[in-house]
Amino acid sequence: MSTNSKAVLDHPGLMTIKACERPTPGPGEVLIKIARVGMCGSDMHGFKSGPYIPPQPGQEVGLGHEPAGVVVEVGDDVTELKAGDRVCVEPGIPCYTCEFCLSGHYNVCPNVDFMATAPNYRGAFTEYLVHPATLVFPLPDELSLDEGALVEPASVAVHAVEMAGTLLGKTVVILGAGAVGLMVSMVARMAGARKIVAVDLQDSRLQTARRLGADATVNSGEGDPVARIKEVVGRYGADVVFETAGAVPTVKLGLQVVKRRGRFMIVGTVPGEAPVPFLAINREVTIQTVFRYCNSYPTTIELIRSGALRVSELIDRHFAYADIQHAFETAVGDPGSFTKAVVVVDDSLK
Amino acid sequence: MSTNSKAVLDHPGLMTIKACERPTPGPGEVLIKIARVGMCGSDMHGFKSGPYIPPQPGQEVGLGHEPAGVVVEVGDDVTELKAGDRVCVEPGIPCYTCEFCLSGHYNVCPNVDFMATAPNYRGAFTEYLVHPATLVFPLPDELSLDEGALVEPASVAVHAVEMAGTLLGKTVVILGAGAVGLMVSMVARMAGARKIVAVDLQDSRLQTARRLGADATVNSGEGDPVARIKEVVGRYGADVVFETAGAVPTVKLGLQVVKRRGRFMIVGTVPGEAPVPFLAINREVTIQTVFRYCNSYPTTIELIRSGALRVSELIDRHFAYADIQHAFETAVGDPGSFTKAVVVVDDSLK
Amino acid sequence: MSTNSKAVLDHPGLMTIKACERPTPGPGEVLIKIARVGMCGSDMHGFKSGPYIPPQPGQEVGLGHEPAGVVVEVGDDVTELKAGDRVCVEPGIPCYTCEFCLSGHYNVCPNVDFMATAPNYRGAFTEYLVHPATLVFPLPDELSLDEGALVEPASVAVHAVEMAGTLLGKTVVILGAGAVGLMVSMVARMAGARKIVAVDLQDSRLQTARRLGADATVNSGEGDPVARIKEVVGRYGADVVFETAGAVPTVKLGLQVVKRRGRFMIVGTVPGEAPVPFLAINREVTIQTVFRYCNSYPTTIELIRSGALRVSELIDRHFAYADIQHAFETAVGDPGSFTKAVVVVDDSLK
Amino acid sequence: MSTNSKAVLDHPGLMTIKACERPTPGPGEVLIKIARVGMCGSDMHGFKSGPYIPPQPGQEVGLGHEPAGVVVEVGDDVTELKAGDRVCVEPGIPCYTCEFCLSGHYNVCPNVDFMATAPNYRGAFTEYLVHPATLVFPLPDELSLDEGALVEPASVAVHAVEMAGTLLGKTVVILGAGAVGLMVSMVARMAGARKIVAVDLQDSRLQTARRLGADATVNSGEGDPVARIKEVVGRYGADVVFETAGAVPTVKLGLQVVKRRGRFMIVGTVPGEAPVPFLAINREVTIQTVFRYCNSYPTTIELIRSGALRVSELIDRHFAYADIQHAFETAVGDPGSFTKAVVVVDDSLK
Repeated sequence: MSTNSKAVLDHPGLMTIKACERPTPGPGEVLIKIARVGMCGSDMHGFKSGPYIPPQPGQEVGLGHEPAGVVVEVGDDVTELKAGDRVCVEPGIPCYTCEFCLSGHYNVCPNVDFMATAPNYRGAFTEYLVHPATLVFPLPDELSLDEGALVEPASVAVHAVEMAGTLLGKTVVILGAGAVGLMVSMVARMAGARKIVAVDLQDSRLQTARRLGADATVNSGEGDPVARIKEVVGRYGADVVFETAGAVPTVKLGLQVVKRRGRFMIVGTVPGEAPVPFLAINREVTIQTVFRYCNSYPTTIELIRSGALRVSELIDRHFAYADIQHAFETAVGDPGSFTKAVVVVDDSLK
Repeated sequence: MSTNSKAVLDHPGLMTIKACERPTPGPGEVLIKIARVGMCGSDMHGFKSGPYIPPQPGQEVGLGHEPAGVVVEVGDDVTELKAGDRVCVEPGIPCYTCEFCLSGHYNVCPNVDFMATAPNYRGAFTEYLVHPATLVFPLPDELSLDEGALVEPASVAVHAVEMAGTLLGKTVVILGAGAVGLMVSMVARMAGARKIVAVDLQDSRLQTARRLGADATVNSGEGDPVARIKEVVGRYGADVVFETAGAVPTVKLGLQVVKRRGRFMIVGTVPGEAPVPFLAINREVTIQTVFRYCNSYPTTIELIRSGALRVSELIDRHFAYADIQHAFETAVGDPGSFTKAVVVVDDSLK
Repeated sequence: MSTNSKAVLDHPGLMTIKACERPTPGPGEVLIKIARVGMCGSDMHGFKSGPYIPPQPGQEVGLGHEPAGVVVEVGDDVTELKAGDRVCVEPGIPCYTCEFCLSGHYNVCPNVDFMATAPNYRGAFTEYLVHPATLVFPLPDELSLDEGALVEPASVAVHAVEMAGTLLGKTVVILGAGAVGLMVSMVARMAGARKIVAVDLQDSRLQTARRLGADATVNSGEGDPVARIKEVVGRYGADVVFETAGAVPTVKLGLQVVKRRGRFMIVGTVPGEAPVPFLAINREVTIQTVFRYCNSYPTTIELIRSGALRVSELIDRHFAYADIQHAFETAVGDPGSFTKAVVVVDDSLK
Repeated sequence: MSTNSKAVLDHPGLMTIKACERPTPGPGEVLIKIARVGMCGSDMHGFKSGPYIPPQPGQEVGLGHEPAGVVVEVGDDVTELKAGDRVCVEPGIPCYTCEFCLSGHYNVCPNVDFMATAPNYRGAFTEYLVHPATLVFPLPDELSLDEGALVEPASVAVHAVEMAGTLLGKTVVILGAGAVGLMVSMVARMAGARKIVAVDLQDSRLQTARRLGADATVNSGEGDPVARIKEVVGRYGADVVFETAGAVPTVKLGLQVVKRRGRFMIVGTVPGEAPVPFLAINREVTIQTVFRYCNSYPTTIELIRSGALRVSELIDRHFAYADIQHAFETAVGDPGSFTKAVVVVDDSLK
């Protein structure tokens, strides 16, 4: 009876909004009225090609996993949240009892139920969402709902920096100056990085990187990028390199500029197979893949609240929920036309 | 023929300046004209009571280990420095070949020759000093010689923060708001600490702590400091506690406010024996003693250069080299009268 | 209707066995017929003085937290266990959702429901026990039920060694040659320790330590134990020291024999306050308290199964469940009369 | 006057022994009469194709870096060694003062002078060798000179295991059952590995692996090796995988059997570029290249002395120094004809 709607991927290339029932929060759960949902590169990939893990025949597929909204109802045993709370949502529900969860790494839980992927393909592009209260975080007054929607991707950057170890006084190269790369840059600065070099193919993105705090930028399409990076970080290369572009050429570039004993953090989704010259990096380089985030939301929210992690400066496009097909067509058709887009599901919520 | 002078501790309580020969730099060494030398708490202790490790009968004892100056001559094989370079000096010469040096921890080298202590008791309060070039660091133009003299104590803070592990998003309590505590506070902020609480008995020092960036301050002589600290950092206590006061009551306080699985960094020189209630902290607390610094000068210099580590704001007293006896009498007689004092050995150097 | 019984601490010094109802396993739980329960030092302390955390007025207090037995019934949703399985039990039920659980350290969960302590004081000295299936581990055929009862204390040793970091080629001193110390010795050997020195006041215990694999033993009541320990581990002291005796003098001794940059693992329950000479150990020594265990049961069971962790050699006394008052009186009256005692609750189970 | 000889690579494929002067040990150096030198895969590569780093025109190139012998003369200031000491030699002389040396990782020192490579190409196939005393280690009585020659390659295995972190209770896959792989297997066992699976293409090598302690073996040329490995280590894969074969197909196989959050240690020299499917391993896998060893000789010597690291069982071929051309022709012509060969330079030394 209570009404609701959700955006469904009818087939690759077509999303439609369908009416559906409003869910009821069970014990430990809350019902959230969604206000804003960020659009992620993986959403674009899903729109274009379908989910990485194909759904069951006939299974309904939603997209979106970066929601923010307002709690409208709480289930039994929920004590930390109440109706009216402005919140952001951690989109993966881990099992809490597998060996990975128990050892503190629920982000690699093989049983996780993460939005917009297997097994349930629940998407955040919906009006009302039920979620476990332990994975719903109140937004401080200082954070807008737009910023709330960016807590999820910002947590990727925070987790990547946490996994890189102490950055105090270290030299850092960040490959890719898209939303994640720019956030890694800001978080690395907060963690004490001494020199930050942003690398991208587009000068406009490099300008943004400089504005948000990078010490130097290198357009990897011009001249000898390895030499120019080493001019900044020193002849032995950088202590830590973050790959956020998700591309084979940037993996190759990263391996050329990481120092002996340095760390190469793979944050982007690198397609296919990237050739790694193990002999050339045979100086105790660590290649570390980074997956989502784990226990990072409180830190991320606080870093945004403090003003140091300026995620709102990344948002340069809004779409209306009703226009979601248009939003995805735009995003897929001209990916360079914005840094970060947010879908407004309920404009009345502040 | 070449003249020189040095301050010598005739006996506890009396320093006099004596003429001596100017040394010549051997291979790999440089000769430095000293400009400024910071005064450290351990100097005051040495002046009052003699060195911690008693010298041999008849052995001459110098004080001071925080020198900055200008290179005047370089020995053979010195390629990275030249006459005229403004420099600061790392005062301990490790052996480089013991198991501790080889494993990257030369700060605990049992064979180290550190200024103003055994075996050689060479002091930095002198006009000309010879030192291995590898332990002499050029000062960037942005650093004054006063700031150069503070690289040594600032490195203690940098090393303490490095040993504390990643601070990004962590809550931190700093016990003691003297020079080292204030520098730990600034460095912890640069390393991403989320909440920093400074604790001291003197309100004037706490005001300085707030001015230099602490989020909250607690006067440990008033009311219930444990409760007030936990109001800021949360009921389980702080992720990391730094003891910089070097006192038994602060050790006790620190153990009460460190979180389960938290780290308690002992940076100050705690005299005698501090009682530790192991049963009470039996929740996988780590107590970590921190000793000097190791490979920290480049980071420290860069953090000062960047403007984030504002060591010059700590210097609130200068003494002339000729008045060194007066300087020590003042410092020992009224230790609270300044935060950090610097002795001017050569006022003409800039 | 279904009968059961449990041993209850009427008041310090008196345990009686009382009839009670047999519990029914809920979803995710199993019902276990208890066969053997190990007696721990903390049980003796509880018998003599009551629990460390005083119970509520009128609250029933059980003792024992080292049970092994046979599954007799499984609740809904239990797929990994079935009736007839021989099992051991992890006695603490964590909340799984606090910050400590989520970061992989459920052993310090502030909400844990651990046997024989607050909040529920459920004891293992009972005939039938209900427990979450995720905390119940099948015993391989090679393990007797006696050995199953020792998985809990052996996990303390395994966790302590895990927390000590890589031991390959390291020198190790173990203070205290009781059951935990002896197990730490065996596990440290399995982890690659090069030299293991066992230290105790009783020669009979030191003989056991040698039999179980220690390279050297030192009676700390005779001569100069510091000098004799350093003869074995080298003049700079041991890489890692484990305190398992839970006594102030052993803490003091340990701090004298731990190497610069070494680790001092506090495994025993040290009463009161131990004086720590921070100045003397001011060479980057790490003091690490160790609490119970975390994700250690699978490793412990496997190490016992492999034959390397010979826990059965520690069991030198059995008591009947019906004689539990006698068992505790004996254990408290003459603690040195056995290394490890096991209470036989059901002799028919094998 | 004092005679000496050394084997020189005239051109790829031809080694000849030439007379040369016997060197004199300078301060801190010792002169060693070489007794045995192990043959390494990199020697075979050098014989066949010349050094990885081409020498200067006209520069003399030696091979061999696994020497053991007897000290015949010591230079000034050498106190820890004397004539007559049976010793093994660490073949790389680091600079001790670069950032990598100072941080405890002299194995990646860019200024290292390592035998048989740039800049000096000094080889161990010689009668008399001068070397710094700090890099010369006495052999305990229990070690033969043959075993002394194997300390160098065994240190590679020890270092690889040290870099893998705690192995206690972990599952381990070792790709390649040549000399290094077999030694990694033995050392991993000593470090507490729970399940060790050896993988190779040759059944005879797998038999050796089983004899030396592997729990299971898999011939990667038969059936579905991924499935068979996972049968042993569990469906999520192994905690740690060591690549010791130095081949692209084993890199690929390793990435398929390493667990989420697991570690893939690249020990072998992998030629060319290996394709890495980053998307497939995007579960926080760590790929770690391992280079030589660092501070590992004392541990290696002790592990051999203890009897646990049975390197002598790997030696199944001896060649005479006079027949060095034949030795290399045999080794290059039929690399599978032995596991480990040792060249006898002086048969009279024991």
